[in-house]
Amino acid sequence: MAKTQIGIASWYGAREAGHKTASGTIFDPSYPTAAHRTLPLGTCVRVTDLRNSRFVIVPVTDRGPYIPGRLIDLSENAAQTLDMKTSGLARVRVDVVSSCLSYVKSRPPTRPELS
Amino acid sequence: MAKTQIGIASWYGAREAGHKTASGTIFDPSYPTAAHRTLPLGTCVRVTDLRNSRFVIVPVTDRGPYIPGRLIDLSENAAQTLDMKTSGLARVRVDVVSSCLSYVKSRPPTRPELS
Repeated sequence: MAKTQIGIASWYGAREAGHKTASGTIFDPSYPTAAHRTLPLGTCVRVTDLRNSRFVIVPVTDRGPYIPGRLIDLSENAAQTLDMKTSGLARVRVDVVSSCLSYVKSRPPTRPELS
Repeated sequence: MAKTQIGIASWYGAREAGHKTASGTIFDPSYPTAAHRTLPLGTCVRVTDLRNSRFVIVPVTDRGPYIPGRLIDLSENAAQTLDMKTSGLARVRVDVVSSCLSYVKSRPPTRPELS
């Protein structure tokens, strides 16, 4: 895919907490991560809210979102950083920053007490 | 400097909120950023807490810390992600991920209401 994509972000939180992500880590909504359908797991992306210019850099640890027209799903923590928790959806730009796959595999970004 | 450094991280928060950072942005402790003495402003670094393996990816927006033996100062938000707010200090690894300088300059990572 292109290095930059523009689309709609949503977020996921408590309901999915403790579930295993596609990358094998345990989902922790208090940690900044994201789900994307096609980017390699472990890619680091910068997600910019085009309304307020806030951005967050997160590893893609999970697959989704599967709703048509939805580009990326952010963890609750990342959504909070963008100030989009209340609105629920935000128009964002997603830029690939680097790969951090080996990192994600060797050190899962999860709270130890959840794994 | 080397692409990877190991040292002690501290964090800064409410007392510095609203102050102008070395990169020209307004410091917002609720946003994930960092201060480092020598890395180019706008560099994105992955900061890993070596005790619990949690990591956060943040842009270097500020200069400091100036206390000897201290490697990096994290915003309160980033410290929260690493679970080091209570301990105050943490032994961390800092890896350079990429440059996001042009980005930081054009879109300051600040809450609009603070700037």
